[in-house]
Amino acid sequence: LKFSTSSVMAKSKFEYVRNFELDDTCLRNCYIVVRLDGRNFHKFSEQHNFMKPNDNRALGLMSRSARSVMEELEDITIAYGQSDEFSFVFKRSTTWFKRRASKLMTHVTSQFSSSFVYYWKEYFGEQPLLYPPSFDGRVVLYPSNHNLRDYLSWRQADCHINNLYNTTFWTLVQKGGLTTTQAEERLSGTQAADKNEILFSEFNINYNNESPMHKKGTTLIWEKVNETTTKQIKRPDKGETEVTVTRTRKKVTSHSCDIIGDQFWEEHPDILESDQC
Amino acid sequence: LKFSTSSVMAKSKFEYVRNFELDDTCLRNCYIVVRLDGRNFHKFSEQHNFMKPNDNRALGLMSRSARSVMEELEDITIAYGQSDEFSFVFKRSTTWFKRRASKLMTHVTSQFSSSFVYYWKEYFGEQPLLYPPSFDGRVVLYPSNHNLRDYLSWRQADCHINNLYNTTFWTLVQKGGLTTTQAEERLSGTQAADKNEILFSEFNINYNNESPMHKKGTTLIWEKVNETTTKQIKRPDKGETEVTVTRTRKKVTSHSCDIIGDQFWEEHPDILESDQC
Amino acid sequence: LKFSTSSVMAKSKFEYVRNFELDDTCLRNCYIVVRLDGRNFHKFSEQHNFMKPNDNRALGLMSRSARSVMEELEDITIAYGQSDEFSFVFKRSTTWFKRRASKLMTHVTSQFSSSFVYYWKEYFGEQPLLYPPSFDGRVVLYPSNHNLRDYLSWRQADCHINNLYNTTFWTLVQKGGLTTTQAEERLSGTQAADKNEILFSEFNINYNNESPMHKKGTTLIWEKVNETTTKQIKRPDKGETEVTVTRTRKKVTSHSCDIIGDQFWEEHPDILESDQC
Amino acid sequence: LKFSTSSVMAKSKFEYVRNFELDDTCLRNCYIVVRLDGRNFHKFSEQHNFMKPNDNRALGLMSRSARSVMEELEDITIAYGQSDEFSFVFKRSTTWFKRRASKLMTHVTSQFSSSFVYYWKEYFGEQPLLYPPSFDGRVVLYPSNHNLRDYLSWRQADCHINNLYNTTFWTLVQKGGLTTTQAEERLSGTQAADKNEILFSEFNINYNNESPMHKKGTTLIWEKVNETTTKQIKRPDKGETEVTVTRTRKKVTSHSCDIIGDQFWEEHPDILESDQC
Repeated sequence: LKFSTSSVMAKSKFEYVRNFELDDTCLRNCYIVVRLDGRNFHKFSEQHNFMKPNDNRALGLMSRSARSVMEELEDITIAYGQSDEFSFVFKRSTTWFKRRASKLMTHVTSQFSSSFVYYWKEYFGEQPLLYPPSFDGRVVLYPSNHNLRDYLSWRQADCHINNLYNTTFWTLVQKGGLTTTQAEERLSGTQAADKNEILFSEFNINYNNESPMHKKGTTLIWEKVNETTTKQIKRPDKGETEVTVTRTRKKVTSHSCDIIGDQFWEEHPDILESDQC
Repeated sequence: LKFSTSSVMAKSKFEYVRNFELDDTCLRNCYIVVRLDGRNFHKFSEQHNFMKPNDNRALGLMSRSARSVMEELEDITIAYGQSDEFSFVFKRSTTWFKRRASKLMTHVTSQFSSSFVYYWKEYFGEQPLLYPPSFDGRVVLYPSNHNLRDYLSWRQADCHINNLYNTTFWTLVQKGGLTTTQAEERLSGTQAADKNEILFSEFNINYNNESPMHKKGTTLIWEKVNETTTKQIKRPDKGETEVTVTRTRKKVTSHSCDIIGDQFWEEHPDILESDQC
Repeated sequence: LKFSTSSVMAKSKFEYVRNFELDDTCLRNCYIVVRLDGRNFHKFSEQHNFMKPNDNRALGLMSRSARSVMEELEDITIAYGQSDEFSFVFKRSTTWFKRRASKLMTHVTSQFSSSFVYYWKEYFGEQPLLYPPSFDGRVVLYPSNHNLRDYLSWRQADCHINNLYNTTFWTLVQKGGLTTTQAEERLSGTQAADKNEILFSEFNINYNNESPMHKKGTTLIWEKVNETTTKQIKRPDKGETEVTVTRTRKKVTSHSCDIIGDQFWEEHPDILESDQC
Repeated sequence: LKFSTSSVMAKSKFEYVRNFELDDTCLRNCYIVVRLDGRNFHKFSEQHNFMKPNDNRALGLMSRSARSVMEELEDITIAYGQSDEFSFVFKRSTTWFKRRASKLMTHVTSQFSSSFVYYWKEYFGEQPLLYPPSFDGRVVLYPSNHNLRDYLSWRQADCHINNLYNTTFWTLVQKGGLTTTQAEERLSGTQAADKNEILFSEFNINYNNESPMHKKGTTLIWEKVNETTTKQIKRPDKGETEVTVTRTRKKVTSHSCDIIGDQFWEEHPDILESDQC
């Protein structure tokens, strides 16, 4: 019995170790971006027989997991994903987790990772997940709307460049009969125009007609949508009547459009907060 | 076609945003502790009908997930878990991820979270996981062996205090017929000795005989174990013979013992590195 | 002789300690403010017989030291001082010292401190400086023009509140014959309006006519000024002629005006950089 | 009058800018080293005609300024200086300024810089200081005694290497009649042994006999010293008597000895705190 009492005393004796925790609060009035990257996803995609150059099941699962993150953390106003990466943007005035960087990045990473496994079956059906995958995360701050848009533009430009390369590469292999080494050599040093030309003249593929999701990646935002439901209502005099109810609800919606130009931002003016704050 | 070329140019124009990423390298020659905590696990445990005061399926799944983390990150020399938390200790000389705090904490959190969902069925069988759970993580540095041991002692003392409280509380409810409110009132202001006394005199329960895993939590370390396998070998003259092969392998082992006193550390001298470094 | 060789080897053996230095780069595209505060200046001002409520010699020396800092670090676009504090604002795009916080704050503090002693005699004449004074410094980042202006407004509002209090307090003591304790009691709980009323009705002092430097503090900025010099020029045929040469030069200028309202900023549009960057 | 009231309101409206200040507390149980370096001291030393290779007036002034820092900040247990740099070591358990890095480094830098100007005349007499000099500072943490001693050893090894080079270089110039370019070429690629040989065989100088302060730098520590004073005491019966009073006082003492080996640390066991904390 004596042991237990000393345990309480012991705990208070040890509690000083709490003070070794350092504060990592994010600077106020800056956008907080959390970016996740799949770890060893090259190997992961091979072990799970991902389609080349793009596997729609994997892309769908990535977006589904990202939506799960946004629904848990409503201060994320926009998320952008491509390949095995996803970026989440917290509004600049957010006070979630007191803006502590470690809380923000681990919570996003954790929710994404558990969702990826949880929703696997919805996208891969009976094909089993061979082992639990892992993502790493980081936090980056952006002080202005201009900087934030440049960040997202950077990721989308990266998506475009990679997808054009991969599309051409796998077309050379899958339709052109080249080995992967030959395809690599063929593309070495080529410009974007050259790759478009190879696709068009040799395989009759117009890159512009490729899937928008592959060319532009996936952008998730919150939008107000009208939801119409039908209810049966009993009235004392008239018996049952069918009534249509329309409610406006905020919902995460998915887009495969250009986010580098101004149009997207003009159409969704609520994503950014004013720089004049 | 022109678009693609300008996209490459665009990317390099945007690439300056990389420089907003700040360095978060951990101070050298310090132990790096990553601690995870379940988010809203009170609610999670109720929704999944966890046994009270301890659910062995959940504790088993936590340990299984922690082992998955250790097997991915071999520079973790010891991990300690209780309830819905787990702490992972990287050796003080580790150079994993160049000691970058965000990489270390997100990788641990991600691997743990995906493993928790992945191995759910092994521990909960047909009982479904209702939604993907989430854990948050943090990094804390400890400069000396003394500080690190005090950290682990702090968590184990916390485990003991909570478990004694919970054991008494749920005994009063489950066997004593009290409501949860009545049990709370009964325990308000009591010392450890009082709780032991309630258990013993009213319910004939000796707390010391309770399960070590519940009283002490779970400690995971790397140990060398001998693995013996039997092989059939064909010899040209004698036909088949059975041969026993013993190999030494490093393996994560689980312990439910006291880690506050010196004995555990004397028995496993390789966990800590010298302060004289 | 052998010793020296081993000393070179020794140095390289010890050099690993360099890696314990951590990076403290300031987030890009943010204003970097370094604020200095005098340490124990209450005592310092008494030991050096500062005039109450304001000592123009001390204020002059503070501004002279601040100018010395600005002339050394040209990326400081504005500095604001009052009482024993001074704030220095580096432009948001500065790359001085690679934006390392420790370099920026120690260099500003050092230059200010050595200048304070160096120029003492210019302001205090034969009155000796009794010991070397000390200032502490800190770095704060502001992501937007709005935030930066609010920071400077905060300091100027603070100047006004303190100066009104001090002016009333010392008038009560010096002209009203109260002890300092009595003056403190008299002012306890009073609003600004009350203090203005005391000054006006009891001492016939209109606070609005007080010195702008005391009410508004000192603002230092870079301005282009025309400097006219006269030179004697020898011409082969005409002998000596006097020629007037006007050159435009950037110079630190001092202002005691309101910086809370828009007028100052409209008159000096070059101090702030656009938020659209 | 209304203005003043709104000024108080204004101040509270602006006060949110305080929250942009980020915490920079130093990790506990680590030695905190603040190192200062003279800025542009090569130029400074030429403009003030420093003796080559070492100017004892400058070295004396550096040490005097360092002592001034130690007397202001008693938690500095040891300081080491050479050339235009000085390192100050706060004890690992210090709570000065709540261990905030910016406060610690700016206070040290400020006190040092103002002292350097303040005590200039004591070392340079009538030779005027031409402008206020500047020092930059930084903070580095060391978690163990071993790391801290290696840091100090690194600085002392650096002192030795530089001093041997400079002594040989200036002997070649001053006594050997070489130009600085010729001396540089002569020394290019030489080992320590070669430099010792040049000094000995060509100039009959035994480097070992050079001044310890030049070879080893200056180490400042706190020591208990006995101070004996003589007082005249009047006794009622016997008239005046002379009495000797000895008091023990802590005082900063200066040493030019080796601090790489164990002897110095064994003789001053109070400088380091145990790693077992």
